[in-house]
Amino acid sequence: MAKINSNFKNLSKNYLFSEIDKRVKLYLAAHPRAKIFNLGVGNTTEPIVHAVIKGLKRKVGELGRRETYTGYGNFQGDMILREALSKWYRKRGLKISPSEIFISDGAKSDCANISSIFAPDSRVAICDPVYPVYRDANLLAGKKLIYLAAKEENGFFPSLPEEKADLIFLCSPNNPTGAAAKASQLREFVDYAIKNKAIIIFDAAYSEYIQEKEFPKSIYQIEGSRKCAIEIQSLSKSAGFTGIRLGWTIVPNGLRTEDALGEGEINRLWRRRQSTMFNGASNIAQEGGLAVFSEAGQKETQKQIKYYLENANLIKEELERLKLKVFGGVNAPYLWVKCPGGLSSWEFFDKLLKETQVICTPGAGFGICGEGYVRFSAFAKREEIKKGVESIKKNLYL
Amino acid sequence: MAKINSNFKNLSKNYLFSEIDKRVKLYLAAHPRAKIFNLGVGNTTEPIVHAVIKGLKRKVGELGRRETYTGYGNFQGDMILREALSKWYRKRGLKISPSEIFISDGAKSDCANISSIFAPDSRVAICDPVYPVYRDANLLAGKKLIYLAAKEENGFFPSLPEEKADLIFLCSPNNPTGAAAKASQLREFVDYAIKNKAIIIFDAAYSEYIQEKEFPKSIYQIEGSRKCAIEIQSLSKSAGFTGIRLGWTIVPNGLRTEDALGEGEINRLWRRRQSTMFNGASNIAQEGGLAVFSEAGQKETQKQIKYYLENANLIKEELERLKLKVFGGVNAPYLWVKCPGGLSSWEFFDKLLKETQVICTPGAGFGICGEGYVRFSAFAKREEIKKGVESIKKNLYL
Repeated sequence: MAKINSNFKNLSKNYLFSEIDKRVKLYLAAHPRAKIFNLGVGNTTEPIVHAVIKGLKRKVGELGRRETYTGYGNFQGDMILREALSKWYRKRGLKISPSEIFISDGAKSDCANISSIFAPDSRVAICDPVYPVYRDANLLAGKKLIYLAAKEENGFFPSLPEEKADLIFLCSPNNPTGAAAKASQLREFVDYAIKNKAIIIFDAAYSEYIQEKEFPKSIYQIEGSRKCAIEIQSLSKSAGFTGIRLGWTIVPNGLRTEDALGEGEINRLWRRRQSTMFNGASNIAQEGGLAVFSEAGQKETQKQIKYYLENANLIKEELERLKLKVFGGVNAPYLWVKCPGGLSSWEFFDKLLKETQVICTPGAGFGICGEGYVRFSAFAKREEIKKGVESIKKNLYL
Repeated sequence: MAKINSNFKNLSKNYLFSEIDKRVKLYLAAHPRAKIFNLGVGNTTEPIVHAVIKGLKRKVGELGRRETYTGYGNFQGDMILREALSKWYRKRGLKISPSEIFISDGAKSDCANISSIFAPDSRVAICDPVYPVYRDANLLAGKKLIYLAAKEENGFFPSLPEEKADLIFLCSPNNPTGAAAKASQLREFVDYAIKNKAIIIFDAAYSEYIQEKEFPKSIYQIEGSRKCAIEIQSLSKSAGFTGIRLGWTIVPNGLRTEDALGEGEINRLWRRRQSTMFNGASNIAQEGGLAVFSEAGQKETQKQIKYYLENANLIKEELERLKLKVFGGVNAPYLWVKCPGGLSSWEFFDKLLKETQVICTPGAGFGICGEGYVRFSAFAKREEIKKGVESIKKNLYL
């Protein structure tokens, strides 16, 4: 008599984006000739850069010839790609061995799966507002959640958990708030983790948007973090791989839990998990990833990141000119905007849609502490951003 | 105080292929000029067919241009690919709606993850010998296993479980035994599942190797199976996508458990799981997959499958000429060979290596009932198979 996993009942209905769709459709039904400007979307729009296209094409060509065809690769990722990553970190002053790097099909899967190597009754701390994957994946696994409020008062970086947490998810630069954590802020969490034998899961998917030196791009810039932190990375937003799918996770050999004290022990658990439940990222995507870390690839993708940051700045300047309170958007592709006049997230969403035809993302969709804010994204097309911003300037009634 | 998932302790050390490597290395150290013939490997060697290369190249080209670039797609898979699959099934007389199809990065992940939508205390029946993923993934999740013996006496297809099972993993054509199940055999399991409200997870990754009509290519050819069976599929062995990564899983709307009786309820659970923990298969791989289901793609990949089956036949004929007992290899890419003279799997492996320099895979590595057998694979290169078979003919001392 099969039964379903009853933890599904603990998930809220995943209604944020479908609710947005519904409201936009209703608006369009009433105003069929309206032109909508979507400034909420987290999906990349700039094409894959030339150096990477070359790498992808080369691999596809190789797959078509008997002499160069390859099937299953190393499930942990091509050694040449892991070595390129190790070198990339070394240039940043960080020593990450290729054996500590696990190539994945993107940060989302790894963020969702990483908790499975830890005890089922682990207490998991996540921020509020939060990227919903941390919350939902841990709820599905029956783990207990502790919410850490990220509010204006604390610069949208949470205080240490009051209850004891076993696993702590942090994301910097943050989705959705666009806040980047300072070294001193991360330092506090690393100290807490070492003291309490907790593990930090550090989502660094937006690290390449950091422009200012005081914000670490990697948790491993914090001393002691190799004992207590796993870092998850992605090429989705730094190289437009949202559809191609490629990321990686670093499980340092120095990592320790209360019951796993041996060198490389946790690394071996993740290796066993991945070799059992994953068959490696697409070899085409991996060849593209390798090209990202070539000299030309780095140059071109950094230019693309700057382009998206200019988008962010376009939105930020205009909203600030209207005296709106804007956070993020400097070291992150997201802007976190306080709703004017005490409006709720959804009220301001509706107002923007009706008056300006601009779509944003209501902050309340990311957690209780997101109420009263909306998220703008720098990933829309430049033309759309310009027109959207123009419409806000002209039509928003404040 | 973080702790590790103690279920890792229930996993056996995954030593099969590393033990093979070790023995081959030892042999080569003693015989440095020996030429080895690897006839054990399950990895594909034939290149991606022309029609598919064209599809892959087209998508890569599109990703490089702003007008055609796409980022995140539908996490359930491109609708056009799901529609092509639905049509492919329809040609086989099966009605599978695109909403019931979930495109994945390969059968392995789905085989490993599917149990997570069912109760943590589910009793899971798996065959012995078995593809280790079913066993290890369920052990990691703390589920209870029931082993179903697949032996010569029952044609390597198991009898119904004696204990009550909630989930039942079946694989036909089978890895490792190469046995394909008859409709009547699957019928028994479907009847059992309906009667006991159990769910069958049917791994059909090798279905395209079936040449004889009496063996169903899909569980959905069995009446009533839409109420009780999930089917998992892959392009790894039917189109050489082992490295590109693409598969799909069918969760019928008619599926029922004891506590989920609504139309489409289980389908929605898997959708929620995938939307939470997966971000879709690579869009390049999906475009390649679409090309597999074009007329040219089907023609070319079917030719490739025939080629691998000729490989299987080459091995089969030679071993049978030597009076070895060979199973499989007709509707499957694997041959399951009884060790001669009462030798154990590893003894026969050593004998083959020493006398003929041929590598096979010891059956004992797949479970207790695999003892006394070895697996040969049709995926090696034709030239290597010919030389290996020649060496067995000339040098094996029986």
